[in-house]
Amino acid sequence: MSPAPGPRPGGRSARIQQAVHASTRKLLDERDRADITVPMIAADAGITPSTIYRRWGDITEVFADVAIERLRPDTPPRETGSVRGDLVAWAQEYLEEMSSPVGRAALRDVVMSGETNPLQCATFCRTQIETIVGRGEPVASGVQGAVEHVIDHVVAPIIYRILFDLDPLEPDRVEVLVDQALDAAVRV
Amino acid sequence: MSPAPGPRPGGRSARIQQAVHASTRKLLDERDRADITVPMIAADAGITPSTIYRRWGDITEVFADVAIERLRPDTPPRETGSVRGDLVAWAQEYLEEMSSPVGRAALRDVVMSGETNPLQCATFCRTQIETIVGRGEPVASGVQGAVEHVIDHVVAPIIYRILFDLDPLEPDRVEVLVDQALDAAVRV
Repeated sequence: MSPAPGPRPGGRSARIQQAVHASTRKLLDERDRADITVPMIAADAGITPSTIYRRWGDITEVFADVAIERLRPDTPPRETGSVRGDLVAWAQEYLEEMSSPVGRAALRDVVMSGETNPLQCATFCRTQIETIVGRGEPVASGVQGAVEHVIDHVVAPIIYRILFDLDPLEPDRVEVLVDQALDAAVRV
Repeated sequence: MSPAPGPRPGGRSARIQQAVHASTRKLLDERDRADITVPMIAADAGITPSTIYRRWGDITEVFADVAIERLRPDTPPRETGSVRGDLVAWAQEYLEEMSSPVGRAALRDVVMSGETNPLQCATFCRTQIETIVGRGEPVASGVQGAVEHVIDHVVAPIIYRILFDLDPLEPDRVEVLVDQALDAAVRV
């Protein structure tokens, strides 16, 4: 995994980011997000509200920034001995995390922010899937083709059902979707 | 199509809803949504802010309510002579509408609201797809199975790519996705 982009570790800018993230997470644990304001986060973090406005713009971007850190994978995808097994394990874990209350809220915060955060979130997924597909034998559609198949047919239905409050996919169904996506990638 | 749920047409409640929707749409055309407040909408609609707070709760719900009206289909899906043709026509039109600036903003507003709006938006899609699939010969998976296939493999990738700022699907690709979904529904 490449290092997280962001301010120089240990610098003033990084310390402010850490403090704002910690205060925001703490406030999110304590109360409704609709009741949280920039001045409340600033007071908790021991900085001025204008520091937050200058750096993040508004509270939506603060929430999205915290959400992105929650969504950032901290380990490479688990190895099970086969691409199929790795993808099933990854997708089932992803389904579980994203459909938890914290995962749902993080997804919504990311989608709400109009900046680069939604693409960053999609890129986290893509990178994990690329790693897995890259471990296997070459397929007819190439690594990129297979990755697109998995995004459209495994990731998209997982996320669509969470965001639109439909019944979440069953873990067994995730296995079927992975098989279909791999099958399509080989056939193409 | 079943009639829209909502207040009795012509009553005071319906008039307030119409006025608030019209004022919100007008303000959204004129300025950034981040600059729009409940008091501004109330002033434009000639009502008190507390009327809006009482009925909608907060501005997120007002935006979502307006978005739902924009997303509500106003005609049954076009008939082309085959289920495949109807689905391709519907999905390509849906892709075009949802990826327009107005469509994207409406989708985001719906996802942001934690109430029943996201499910309502998904139900609009589901009803249109049910109408189309119900026009054809019975398939192995039944109408509901076929509808779920279309939701997971056609609607979900269209929406996921829009919300997460990936390259939108090409109209040709939508055709392939419809074929695959129908194929899977027949085989199941």
